[in-house]
Amino acid sequence: MFAERTRHLNGSDIRAILKMTEQPGMISFAGGMPAPELFPIEEIQEVSQHVLKHHGKQALQYTITEGFLPLREQIAQRMQVKFDKACSPQQILITSGSQQGIELSGKLFLDEGDVVLCESPSFLGAFQAFRLYNPRFIEVPTDDQGMVMEELTRILETTDRVKLLYVIPDFQNPTGRSWSLARRKELMEIVSHYEIVVVEDNPYGELIYEGDSLPSLASLDQKDQVVFLGSFSKILCPGFRVGWVCASPQWLEKYVMAKQAADTHTSTFCQQVIHSYLERYDLEQNVSKIKDVYRKRRNIMLDVMDREFPETALFSKPGGGLFIWVELPAFVNTREVLAKSLEKGIAFVPGGSFYPNGGHEHAMRLNFSNMSEDKIIEGIPRLAAVIRTFI
Amino acid sequence: MFAERTRHLNGSDIRAILKMTEQPGMISFAGGMPAPELFPIEEIQEVSQHVLKHHGKQALQYTITEGFLPLREQIAQRMQVKFDKACSPQQILITSGSQQGIELSGKLFLDEGDVVLCESPSFLGAFQAFRLYNPRFIEVPTDDQGMVMEELTRILETTDRVKLLYVIPDFQNPTGRSWSLARRKELMEIVSHYEIVVVEDNPYGELIYEGDSLPSLASLDQKDQVVFLGSFSKILCPGFRVGWVCASPQWLEKYVMAKQAADTHTSTFCQQVIHSYLERYDLEQNVSKIKDVYRKRRNIMLDVMDREFPETALFSKPGGGLFIWVELPAFVNTREVLAKSLEKGIAFVPGGSFYPNGGHEHAMRLNFSNMSEDKIIEGIPRLAAVIRTFI
Repeated sequence: MFAERTRHLNGSDIRAILKMTEQPGMISFAGGMPAPELFPIEEIQEVSQHVLKHHGKQALQYTITEGFLPLREQIAQRMQVKFDKACSPQQILITSGSQQGIELSGKLFLDEGDVVLCESPSFLGAFQAFRLYNPRFIEVPTDDQGMVMEELTRILETTDRVKLLYVIPDFQNPTGRSWSLARRKELMEIVSHYEIVVVEDNPYGELIYEGDSLPSLASLDQKDQVVFLGSFSKILCPGFRVGWVCASPQWLEKYVMAKQAADTHTSTFCQQVIHSYLERYDLEQNVSKIKDVYRKRRNIMLDVMDREFPETALFSKPGGGLFIWVELPAFVNTREVLAKSLEKGIAFVPGGSFYPNGGHEHAMRLNFSNMSEDKIIEGIPRLAAVIRTFI
Repeated sequence: MFAERTRHLNGSDIRAILKMTEQPGMISFAGGMPAPELFPIEEIQEVSQHVLKHHGKQALQYTITEGFLPLREQIAQRMQVKFDKACSPQQILITSGSQQGIELSGKLFLDEGDVVLCESPSFLGAFQAFRLYNPRFIEVPTDDQGMVMEELTRILETTDRVKLLYVIPDFQNPTGRSWSLARRKELMEIVSHYEIVVVEDNPYGELIYEGDSLPSLASLDQKDQVVFLGSFSKILCPGFRVGWVCASPQWLEKYVMAKQAADTHTSTFCQQVIHSYLERYDLEQNVSKIKDVYRKRRNIMLDVMDREFPETALFSKPGGGLFIWVELPAFVNTREVLAKSLEKGIAFVPGGSFYPNGGHEHAMRLNFSNMSEDKIIEGIPRLAAVIRTFI
């Protein structure tokens, strides 16, 4: 009965693990969830009241597919300030989370057999969304500076039908690494010679724990090739499911039509609440509070890992974002490690999930944003003990 | 650059017209919008506070793709009471409006060239969503009792690759008509001999102005062929974008995976607010208030139409829902009528939009839920005057 494309339909490993982590007492380094104790609940209470009291009829009614204009204006401004990208509100489409931006990109650009290039490893939610459009994934090797440009060039020169490049240049999921400025510039120079869409997924760019922010690919884009995906999930909260697409007006028009067919528009109420929050409170202050807490959690996790993990475990020291990436010796299978560590009450995501073409079963992704310092101090040594039994 | 499927990408005529109706003073019978003055704003204020005060951390966090379990339990119960359908919460997936249920159905079931059967005319949002999966639409003739079963049988017997039947048996969009019980039973008997998915879209079923409700197709389904799509947009408010899919557990699992790839999950906050509203307030009373107002508006619109419309204009007298369907003499083109009537400050949707294969340019859809009695009394004669100039 089902369409051919559904043979690529898989639930996310992460979400399956998350279900297991609902057991009480579980220490989970698995999800990419923000710390709920940092949600500005009282402020959101206040703005929800404000919106309903003063704009209730509009906030609970249908709105245009593009999204609530005053929020799009705020986002356009934010694109300039935070991502160096000059754009108009007419280049912003509000989406139901940035996941929807990925899905719409697949729908708009991918014919069966088209090639999607991505960092190796990369975000598995993107694979899930793109896979339904039957592309071929080619993973481009990465190092500490980002995608390896020689490899990218070689692939582009020798591969037909490369349609889309999906990248997370800031504090990547799953590795936590950021691209250097040189790589960003090189990338945009190289792709400018090809008819390729660059999907720049940027949910973590504002969560910087050391160093300066670097210009987004969108800001270096001379040929309107970049589709930038943003989100309020990590800088405010994920429960509203509000993200955005920023693209050229010509491309945005197509995104709007595809969005209309997909779900008409994103919740008016959630859009207005966020708009009102941005107007009445200081999101910078909120982000700054989040950064202070996550920085500490990262530091503690790295410290304990330094002390407790076997020397053969190599791990990233991310300057921002939510994740630490661990590579164990090649003979260790982290799916087996996970089975054991769940028995000890510890969850993480095995690294193999982040490679669209499989393999690489010796890595793991650890999240440091969602667990308290105490849980990190308690959980990491327990995980280390499990790992040691495999080495 | 764009994928082949985007050649079918069109903005909705309705939403283009809705943009024009934003001019002040416009009397719009175009949209399918509920009356915002009936939204229970104070109650929603109260429950929003309650949710944020007592469950803020969960309400603003990620949740599982299936949706908030207590809300799914309430919906499963509602499916029994309102639509005679016995089902468990495990058969309910929360979607971002019922439009997303349509889109996911297309994604899960339609290969290029598969045939979609629909009522002639039918809801254009469904065409928009399905079209991206390149099906062939066959329109099945309808009469006052619903789809004509002889025609359906003939098509099924003579057509290969019929995959999906899309129907709105209760107060259909655009005609306002409901299927008789006999037709419902006949349909389910006929399709039980074929491998066909029946997508039953039911946003208006509770808005009954006279007579009794009839069993849903889902309730008559012996072979788990029916996917039922429900929505809070018309019985509570559309601004939350919360609808649901009810299907067999086997099928629902696929919907959940496709939903996960599409947008992770629907707004946790909106789901919890609706859950809390259902727990703390009486939705029946709200629906009953809506019905009283819409019934009056329908009556007034029909009265004025009886008096003012030319005799050659035939129109439906719907027992529920939001719409009246008008057929003018075949030589009249209602897109031309619309151009003139917009000049006179009146909007409606030309009937041609509701036929996936085009034609039928002499009909129009009028909405009676969104305009006050005064506006109806003022607007319908003005529209009638424009129509007369074409006859």
